[in-house]
Amino acid sequence: MTSAISPLAPAQFPDMPPVDGVRLATAAAGIRYAGRTDVLLALLDPGTAVAGVFTRSKCPSAPVDWCRARVKGGGARALVVNSGNANAFTGKNGREATKLTAEITAMAAGCKPSDVFLASTGVIGEPLEAKKFDAVMDHLVANAAPGAWHEAAKAIMTTDTFPKGAAAMVRLGATPVTICGIAKGAGMIAPDMATMLSFIFTDAPIAPKVLQALLKQGVTDTFNAVTIDGDTSTSDTLLAFATGAAAKRGVTKIDKPTDPRLPAFRKAFDAVLANLAEQVARDGEGARKLVEILVEGATSKSSARKIALSIANSPLVKTAIAGEDANWGRVVMAVGKAGEKADRDKLSIWFGGIRVAHKGERDPAYDEAQVSAAMKRPEITLKVALGLGRARDRVLTCDLTKEYVAINGDYRS
Amino acid sequence: MTSAISPLAPAQFPDMPPVDGVRLATAAAGIRYAGRTDVLLALLDPGTAVAGVFTRSKCPSAPVDWCRARVKGGGARALVVNSGNANAFTGKNGREATKLTAEITAMAAGCKPSDVFLASTGVIGEPLEAKKFDAVMDHLVANAAPGAWHEAAKAIMTTDTFPKGAAAMVRLGATPVTICGIAKGAGMIAPDMATMLSFIFTDAPIAPKVLQALLKQGVTDTFNAVTIDGDTSTSDTLLAFATGAAAKRGVTKIDKPTDPRLPAFRKAFDAVLANLAEQVARDGEGARKLVEILVEGATSKSSARKIALSIANSPLVKTAIAGEDANWGRVVMAVGKAGEKADRDKLSIWFGGIRVAHKGERDPAYDEAQVSAAMKRPEITLKVALGLGRARDRVLTCDLTKEYVAINGDYRS
Repeated sequence: MTSAISPLAPAQFPDMPPVDGVRLATAAAGIRYAGRTDVLLALLDPGTAVAGVFTRSKCPSAPVDWCRARVKGGGARALVVNSGNANAFTGKNGREATKLTAEITAMAAGCKPSDVFLASTGVIGEPLEAKKFDAVMDHLVANAAPGAWHEAAKAIMTTDTFPKGAAAMVRLGATPVTICGIAKGAGMIAPDMATMLSFIFTDAPIAPKVLQALLKQGVTDTFNAVTIDGDTSTSDTLLAFATGAAAKRGVTKIDKPTDPRLPAFRKAFDAVLANLAEQVARDGEGARKLVEILVEGATSKSSARKIALSIANSPLVKTAIAGEDANWGRVVMAVGKAGEKADRDKLSIWFGGIRVAHKGERDPAYDEAQVSAAMKRPEITLKVALGLGRARDRVLTCDLTKEYVAINGDYRS
Repeated sequence: MTSAISPLAPAQFPDMPPVDGVRLATAAAGIRYAGRTDVLLALLDPGTAVAGVFTRSKCPSAPVDWCRARVKGGGARALVVNSGNANAFTGKNGREATKLTAEITAMAAGCKPSDVFLASTGVIGEPLEAKKFDAVMDHLVANAAPGAWHEAAKAIMTTDTFPKGAAAMVRLGATPVTICGIAKGAGMIAPDMATMLSFIFTDAPIAPKVLQALLKQGVTDTFNAVTIDGDTSTSDTLLAFATGAAAKRGVTKIDKPTDPRLPAFRKAFDAVLANLAEQVARDGEGARKLVEILVEGATSKSSARKIALSIANSPLVKTAIAGEDANWGRVVMAVGKAGEKADRDKLSIWFGGIRVAHKGERDPAYDEAQVSAAMKRPEITLKVALGLGRARDRVLTCDLTKEYVAINGDYRS
């Protein structure tokens, strides 16, 4: 099902250290395909705090419903993720499958079912057989070990062409703590979020409320600023787990948003989110170009965001970029359809740093050959200056190629 | 630039009678390409009423600005349409080009510039040389004749693969009147409207205000219920002209919305709009399937419309249909992302009349072979029952194919 590795993929999976209090294991449970790992178990030490952000879909998957209800409790002991089947639109059977999976995991891991978090990705509408987890769970628990991030990232892939991971170290006071994250997502990717699954782990001791605020704020300019096809998945799940194991090394708990150690931690945490979100854009189905959309001179950030997303989701802009055509007329179209304030005669547009349109007209100074060369690069920045105010925003997307159509026109076969 | 004729095209251009008070002429002015007709002139008898509906783009083209300002006057004597250049995002030059074109036309046709209506379609951002109209205008006026609809429809095409026309006859009292319309549009098609140009002509005597109300109401379930790619053009223009020439045959003027003759006229008028709008969907760039989306059981018509458009604009739904895959999971996704009320466990979905999902789960009764056969047809109805209320709506779209990407990835070259 997977294609050749995206030409925009990073050269290699990053070096990622273990996170104290997190043990990982993967297995091939035959959820959909034989002979590939499709289940990830993360075991979390007692006292682990959890936070979550989920899809805004009105038809969320059963695991999203499960996690949304459990995340309020603030504590977690295990995470089970499967690929191959999204357990979405599976009705009562789907709800029973989540309950059973949590019970199977809790039994094997020695915790309560309500401390088990679940995520599923893959085909929608097919029943998920919880007994497949039963067959591998004891093995997973017995084999869970620190630091197997690469295997973990591979087990949760669907149409992804490369595993996605990112890590950061930061000091809380004098003591270093670790933040590691993995993600998957390649299509059905739009803000709020995507069948984008991502899991962040840290040994920092952080209270659930602080972690939740951190995650909610961090997602705005990272995962919620990436769009592949404007399609919002039923299953989007971003969970953050803070084991607190660094407390053993003398780090006191962060339980207030005003904690002076938080800004440095936030910076590292956001960098991990941003890194993973960019990798999702780099693995957009069929993508050949990573496209950064910058909108400046807007009256507000939210207005800039809407315009940036309108450009990023326009099939005509995306196909033009696939064709290496600096078709700024289509950018004007996308600005115009966003429904936000815009004045045609103040608009300027740059492709790859070259201004092609200025104050409502083609820029007479621009050199077509220079622009053509810029459009051939694998990474392209498209900048729009609205000339109305001082607010700006940025989103990441990719081009729309025949390969996208091929991948998605033949997904179930 | 045009591809092979869409497989969804009607077998032939319809027989369309002349409309009393309307004379048509076309010319090859070399706006962008040599050797093809690219200008249409329609001369309208004195006393012609006009109504218009335009793009909601915040960056409309110069001709849209021109028409929007002039339509309030209620009268029209000429229409000039060119293909090849949209005169959009052309700034001050663009405004001057519209003024000059209207003056050239008024001079040749013997009317005021403010009675000249203009529409342009084609590339955005390139200056439009009004002097090209000057070179052909006398010839156009001299050759304008009744009934050349086929030629007129061809002159306004861009990436269209077939010319689009529709006609209806209706009696006002005992006297028959004629309604003829032409349209163009194949991409950048979304409600509100599209680079969709359409011009409707009738010899019925109708006051401008009544005509405007008729047009505005008629567009809701026709042109505004068609989407190809969700991209809204800067240039969408739908103009209706009522010459009133039937008054010579004893038809008194319709100047009140309560006129008892209006319901029959409205029915015929709406049928012409619906026919043309469907032809636009049938000519969607790269389209191989005409897709009717029906949403029922909604809490309101506007909610049903939003859900239907969310389905119709989803790249994942459209590529699945291109792949002849009844992937109802993606339909659930699109329902969920619409942001409207939806209850996963009440949702039922049909492809080609076959129910594939029922009350939140795969319909156990459905026969995959039967559905596969239905998906191979060139016209597919996708029905969603929400189970929440009694409101319903319908939109038309097409599939998303590699050919769409090819057409739009290479438009300017």
